Amino acid sequence: MRMYDIIEKKKNKLSLTKEEIEFFVNGYVANEIPDYQVSSLLMAIVLNGMDDLEVTNLTLAMANSGDKLNLNFNAVDKHSTGGVGDKTTLIITPIVACLDCKVAKMSGKGLGYTGGTIDKLESIPGFKVQLDDDKFINQINDINVSIISQTKNIAPADKKIYALRDVTATVESIPLIASSIMSKKIASGAKNLVLDIKVGSGAFMKNLIDASKLGQTMVNIGKNASINTVAILTNMNEPLGNNIGNNLEVLEAIEVLKGNGPKDLTDISIELASYMVSITKNINYEEAKTKVIEVLDSGKALNKFYELVKYQGGDISKLNHTSKYEYKVYSKKSGYITKMDTAKIGKISSMLGAGRIKKDDLIDYNAGIVLNKKINDYVNKNDLLATLYTDKKIDLINDYLDSIEITDNKVNNDLILGVIK
Amino acid sequence: MRMYDIIEKKKNKLSLTKEEIEFFVNGYVANEIPDYQVSSLLMAIVLNGMDDLEVTNLTLAMANSGDKLNLNFNAVDKHSTGGVGDKTTLIITPIVACLDCKVAKMSGKGLGYTGGTIDKLESIPGFKVQLDDDKFINQINDINVSIISQTKNIAPADKKIYALRDVTATVESIPLIASSIMSKKIASGAKNLVLDIKVGSGAFMKNLIDASKLGQTMVNIGKNASINTVAILTNMNEPLGNNIGNNLEVLEAIEVLKGNGPKDLTDISIELASYMVSITKNINYEEAKTKVIEVLDSGKALNKFYELVKYQGGDISKLNHTSKYEYKVYSKKSGYITKMDTAKIGKISSMLGAGRIKKDDLIDYNAGIVLNKKINDYVNKNDLLATLYTDKKIDLINDYLDSIEITDNKVNNDLILGVIK
Repeated sequence: MRMYDIIEKKKNKLSLTKEEIEFFVNGYVANEIPDYQVSSLLMAIVLNGMDDLEVTNLTLAMANSGDKLNLNFNAVDKHSTGGVGDKTTLIITPIVACLDCKVAKMSGKGLGYTGGTIDKLESIPGFKVQLDDDKFINQINDINVSIISQTKNIAPADKKIYALRDVTATVESIPLIASSIMSKKIASGAKNLVLDIKVGSGAFMKNLIDASKLGQTMVNIGKNASINTVAILTNMNEPLGNNIGNNLEVLEAIEVLKGNGPKDLTDISIELASYMVSITKNINYEEAKTKVIEVLDSGKALNKFYELVKYQGGDISKLNHTSKYEYKVYSKKSGYITKMDTAKIGKISSMLGAGRIKKDDLIDYNAGIVLNKKINDYVNKNDLLATLYTDKKIDLINDYLDSIEITDNKVNNDLILGVIK
Repeated sequence: MRMYDIIEKKKNKLSLTKEEIEFFVNGYVANEIPDYQVSSLLMAIVLNGMDDLEVTNLTLAMANSGDKLNLNFNAVDKHSTGGVGDKTTLIITPIVACLDCKVAKMSGKGLGYTGGTIDKLESIPGFKVQLDDDKFINQINDINVSIISQTKNIAPADKKIYALRDVTATVESIPLIASSIMSKKIASGAKNLVLDIKVGSGAFMKNLIDASKLGQTMVNIGKNASINTVAILTNMNEPLGNNIGNNLEVLEAIEVLKGNGPKDLTDISIELASYMVSITKNINYEEAKTKVIEVLDSGKALNKFYELVKYQGGDISKLNHTSKYEYKVYSKKSGYITKMDTAKIGKISSMLGAGRIKKDDLIDYNAGIVLNKKINDYVNKNDLLATLYTDKKIDLINDYLDSIEITDNKVNNDLILGVIK
C-alpha cells in the first residue's frame, strides 16, 4: 500500500477502505508518512468529503492510536462543540449522577474565545483536576461522577492530525471535525453520549445546515461504534446564561442548581441532562425529564455538586468573586438587543483575563463579564448592559458596545434548534 | 501575508492575487514555507482550479525564480508534451533555421517511456550537448540554431514544486502542468513558441478535451506574457514515424530531411515548422508552409542539420546502427491494426535499453524498435510487425504483441487534431 495511491483515490472522489485509512493514520503517528502527504490528503478530504463508513473508520483508527479508558460500567458523557458562557457540564453532571448515571468526564482547558470546564473547576480553591486512574474510577463508583483534566495519551493521531490541519487551512470539514471529536470520546470509554452542537455567532458552526450535518455525522459514527448518541442543536447567538468567566460561571451554575438561574441556562441544562438520562437508562425522554426536574427541585443535584467539589478537594466556601476593576457598560441608545457578536464577547472576556489567547497564558479566575441585557431585552439609553471584571487596566467598553446591535424589533431566538438521534 | 490565508482562499475557490502567488512561490524556494503547506495548496489548486490570470502569475513567478536567458534576438522555440518516436525537433529546427528563424533550444533527457532530444543527439558520435552561454549564442548568430542540454538554474521553483507534486498525487492539473511548461520556456527566452500537445495512448493527455484545455491555457499564458504562442493538438495513438530509439530516430529524421521519411512524421514536421515560421516572421501560415516545403525539397534543411551536427562536434559519418540481438515480432492474426498501446511500446523500447526507468540509468543508443506496421495497416498472419533491437537477452515479443489490437475494420486516425492560437 502506498500513501500516494490513497491521496490519488481521494483526489478522484473515491471512498477509502478501512485498511487504507488505518495505513495512513498509523503511518502518520509512527512518523512513516510525511506531513506533506498527509496535508495533501486532508485538503482532498476537505474538498471531496468522506462517506459515513470512511468517517467511522477514520474515527476508530484515531481512537485506537493511543491509550483507551476501558470502563466496566455504562458511562455517559456530554460534549459541547464550544461556546461562550457554557457552564452546563457543572450543572448536568451532578443532575445525572443523582439519577444513577455514571459520569467519567475528562475535560479540556479553554483556548481562544471559549472557556474550559477544567479552568472553571480550578477556580474553586483546592479543586484537584488531576487524579490517577484508580482514584478517578473509585470516585465514580462512590458518588457516580468525577471530572478530571485529560492527561492520558488519548487519540494521539487526532492530536497530530489536528496540529497539521491547524496550519494548512483544513480545520473546517465536517468529516474531520466529527471524527476528531468522536475519536476522543470513544477512547475515553463513553457508552452513551449527548452532543451539544452550538450554532450561531459564538459557535464554530455559524448556520443550522452545517450544524445539522455535523450532528448527523457524529450520530452516525456513534451508531457504527455502538455508542448511544444524541445530538442537540442549540442556540449560540448569545452567551449562555448571564455570567462569563471562571468563578463567575461556577457561581451561576450553583444558582441554577438552587433553582434561581437564568432561564436559558436552566432550560438547556434540563434538556441535555434529560437526554443523557434517557439514553443511559433506556427510558423515554419525558420520563427522564420528570426525574431531572425532580432532582433539581429537591436540591439533590446541588448537594451532588457540593459532594463532587469536596471529593476532589475543593472548598466551595472559599469561592468568592472579587476583582480590582469593574467597568460598567451603558447603552448609548434605546431599543431591543437583536444581535450579539458572541465570539467577540468571548474574546473580550479572554482579554479581561478569563481565557487564554496562547496555550500557556495564565488565567485570572475572577475576570469576566456579567450581562444585564441579552437578545430581545428592551434597553433604554444609559441602561446598564454589562459589567466587565478584571485586574487589568484595560478599557474594553467600546469593544463590548460594538459587539451588540440594538434595533426596534425583536428577533427569533429559539434555544433548542433540533435533536438528531 | 500568511501562507495559511492563501491556502484558505484557494480552498474556498477564490482567486489568488499576483502578490499572494509570488509570496508562496518565493517563500517555498527560500525554504520559508514548509512542504506541508504547499502540498495542501497544490491539492486545493488541483481540485478548485485557477483562472487565467492566476495561472499566468504562477508561471511568471516560477519563471522569475532562477536564471533567465535574455536573448537579444527574436528566438523561436517548440515544446512537445512528450510522446513516443517524437524526433520532430531534429527535423524542424534545421528547417526553420534555413528560413532565418533563430532557435536557441535547451532540451531535456528522456525519462519513463518518452525519449529526450538530448539523448538522441548524444547518439551521434562526438556531439556535444553542453556549451557555455557564449558558444551557444555565437553558434545561433552564426548558423541560426543550437540545441543544448538544460544545465542552468532555470525555474527552480518549478523544479521544487514538481518534485512535491510527484509525491502528493497533484501532477494531473491543467493549471499546474501549463504553468510548469511555460515557466521554463519563458525563462529560456523564447519570444515565439509552438506547442505540440500530444493526445492519445502514448501521451500524458489521453483525450482531446483535456488536451484542448491544456493548449488553451498555455496559449493564454503566452498571450499574457507577450510570447507569440500556438498550440497544435496532434495524434499520439501510435508512435510517430517508424523508428523508436536514439540513433534509430536520428537516422529517420535524416530520411525525412532527405524527403524519404514516413508520411506522418513528415507531415507533422511541416505543420510545426510552418507555424514556427509563421509566428516568428509574422507571415501567414500558407506562405510559411510553401517556404518550409521549399527548404525541405531543396536539401537546404538536410544540409542545415549536418551543419548543426558538425558545429557541435558530431560526426554523422560515424553514426551507424548496430545491435547484438534482433527480435522479430510476427503477427498471430490477420486484420487491420486498430489500436497501439503507445505508452507500453515506449516502455518496451526503454526496457530494450533505449530509455531510462530511473534518472541515472545508462542508455544504449542502438536499442529501440523499428515498426513495420502501424494503425490502419492491413496485416496477414505471420507478417512482420516490428523488430526489437537490443544488446540484452530480453524477450519482449509477447509484450509487443499485447500492445497491439488487430480487428476487421479501419479506424479514424487523423494526425492533426486542432490548432489553438
